Amino acid sequence: MNVNGRKYRTIWLADDGWGVEIIDQTRFPHAFETIRLETLEQAAHAIRIMQVRGAPLIGATAAYGLCLALRNDTSDMGLMTACGALLDTRPTAVNLRWALDLMRKTLLPVPPEQRLARAYGMAERICDEDVAINMAIGTHGAKLISEVAARKRPGEPVNILTHCNAGWLATVDWGTATAPIYMSHDAGTPVHVWVDETRPRNQGAFLTAWELGQHGVPHTVVADNAGGHLMQHGEVDMVIVGTDRTTAEGDVCNKIGTYLKALAAKDCGVPFYVALPSPTIDFTLSNGLREIPIEERIGDEVSHITGLTAGGRIETIEIVAPGSDVANPAFDVTPARLVTGLITERGVLSADRQSLAAAFPERVAG
Amino acid sequence: MNVNGRKYRTIWLADDGWGVEIIDQTRFPHAFETIRLETLEQAAHAIRIMQVRGAPLIGATAAYGLCLALRNDTSDMGLMTACGALLDTRPTAVNLRWALDLMRKTLLPVPPEQRLARAYGMAERICDEDVAINMAIGTHGAKLISEVAARKRPGEPVNILTHCNAGWLATVDWGTATAPIYMSHDAGTPVHVWVDETRPRNQGAFLTAWELGQHGVPHTVVADNAGGHLMQHGEVDMVIVGTDRTTAEGDVCNKIGTYLKALAAKDCGVPFYVALPSPTIDFTLSNGLREIPIEERIGDEVSHITGLTAGGRIETIEIVAPGSDVANPAFDVTPARLVTGLITERGVLSADRQSLAAAFPERVAG
Repeated sequence: MNVNGRKYRTIWLADDGWGVEIIDQTRFPHAFETIRLETLEQAAHAIRIMQVRGAPLIGATAAYGLCLALRNDTSDMGLMTACGALLDTRPTAVNLRWALDLMRKTLLPVPPEQRLARAYGMAERICDEDVAINMAIGTHGAKLISEVAARKRPGEPVNILTHCNAGWLATVDWGTATAPIYMSHDAGTPVHVWVDETRPRNQGAFLTAWELGQHGVPHTVVADNAGGHLMQHGEVDMVIVGTDRTTAEGDVCNKIGTYLKALAAKDCGVPFYVALPSPTIDFTLSNGLREIPIEERIGDEVSHITGLTAGGRIETIEIVAPGSDVANPAFDVTPARLVTGLITERGVLSADRQSLAAAFPERVAG
Repeated sequence: MNVNGRKYRTIWLADDGWGVEIIDQTRFPHAFETIRLETLEQAAHAIRIMQVRGAPLIGATAAYGLCLALRNDTSDMGLMTACGALLDTRPTAVNLRWALDLMRKTLLPVPPEQRLARAYGMAERICDEDVAINMAIGTHGAKLISEVAARKRPGEPVNILTHCNAGWLATVDWGTATAPIYMSHDAGTPVHVWVDETRPRNQGAFLTAWELGQHGVPHTVVADNAGGHLMQHGEVDMVIVGTDRTTAEGDVCNKIGTYLKALAAKDCGVPFYVALPSPTIDFTLSNGLREIPIEERIGDEVSHITGLTAGGRIETIEIVAPGSDVANPAFDVTPARLVTGLITERGVLSADRQSLAAAFPERVAG
């Protein structure tokens, strides 16, 4: 999407045809800088310190990181060692493992001298496929937005609330929850986004607000506490969020606080949509609340926050009474009964086992 | 309650019998300092810059501020001028107006030479009455906590979630939502409090956590997003919050985000209680959602936050993407249907018109 009026993806091949460029996401929202990766080590470092983040982008970066490794060593051993090093960066990232498994399985049968070109081709395809999936999500979701827009007075915006960052910065382009928003905006449908700041890591206020602003989408940042009040007063036409993991029955595991917004949407009659690429559906899981373990992250993320001083310095400050205990569950589960629809690359589905199985029969069989 | 092991109220008469001492609440949670007020101007300043906050404490400070003014001028004109100056500090504070009206109406018929002693007596009574009301709330609420404790294994704490600060720092002593907690704790019932940080002004993380910690009550600060998840997993036995305004039908207007916790409590079968002194019931209002206007505060409260650097400096930083719009509704309304009970000084009442009218018949008649 646009940054400073220019189109970007979050990762792309440099003009020389082998270097890999990324946006340094550790500097947001106060600086926009791109970085050139030339080695396996640089790619692994970028994943480890979260210069890239979001499942699809991490997978794409790993794929390109493998290409950079193969420039020095295309042997079986070189390939396996590089995969291991990349996998170690974030061992629990499902997309990272998926991208590396795909690369390894495809490349091992290929003669070493052909592996490099083949690897670059595959990395490019992984990126393009992510973009295609997100554009399909965008197309299906934009229809839902148009339907709301059709009931409004001309020029009156469709108000969409989102939580956390399921934006293009977490993918190669378009994002998941944001794809319908960008498509509607680009098509001239007036949209306005309520952006939950998304404590404790503030991905809404830092990332979603930044990317919407750069692309010119009208938006307003609110404290996470405000969404229920906005819905009570008719200020929200629909909610669209992303998901980290979705069960076969349509339960949705997403950033902590999503469940509260789903409850408010239900109570206020506001449609609650979840946008997701189908790889995030885990058909081995049924009941999200019972079966999905929730990551407990360090309390420092709640008790400390980093931002910009009036003098332009980046500073970290403590914002909890000294000596108090802190807990920091990172995700929660929204039961399927609160989800109006799942916006997937194959259309908008009801959040239930039958609909998901019917749309992705090949996944259920596997 | 206790601070550094010593008992405090938030306002008290100095040992010399005329100066008024308060806790400087602008320094929380990083410093504990008391201030001596000797003039009307100092009292008005303390209210204006929120060295004192919370409806009951503001009322008490205004009453003592009037005493300080009368030390210089006990005439009708002096009395009226001082009331006006104090009322101007926070024109929308209901308790401020109530305390000043009461003082003025009582003092005007009294001969000027007797007014000073009478005023000090009344200010003391206003304080003592607030304490008595909160202790009654505490007694009724502690019974609810005991009932939960009785169903637990010995030593297992009752987990109570609270939002914002309805603590002793907002009253003269005990607080409203915290009174049952302090009473239970002091009586040896094991309690543990989940403290919502309460964005954007962080009264939970700054004030509630501080006062619970000073009094030795086990507690854990969480992001406002976490409460629903905690309730889903049985980590919350009951919710107790305060209220700024309650309608005749039991709708509750409290700090933004309260409604979301009430929804989660309902969804998870967790009892949701609101502690309130009866003066916060407005019998002229019925439907809170339609009739209570919600204060929209400046966006800077969301986009900027103040805390302590690692070097020990107090610093304010920006935590929203530059250029993004910000909205900051300060309160929301929790409909009576989500409220399990209202803990008042006259007992725990159902949140409906009949129960409130039966408990406070003199208020309905008026």
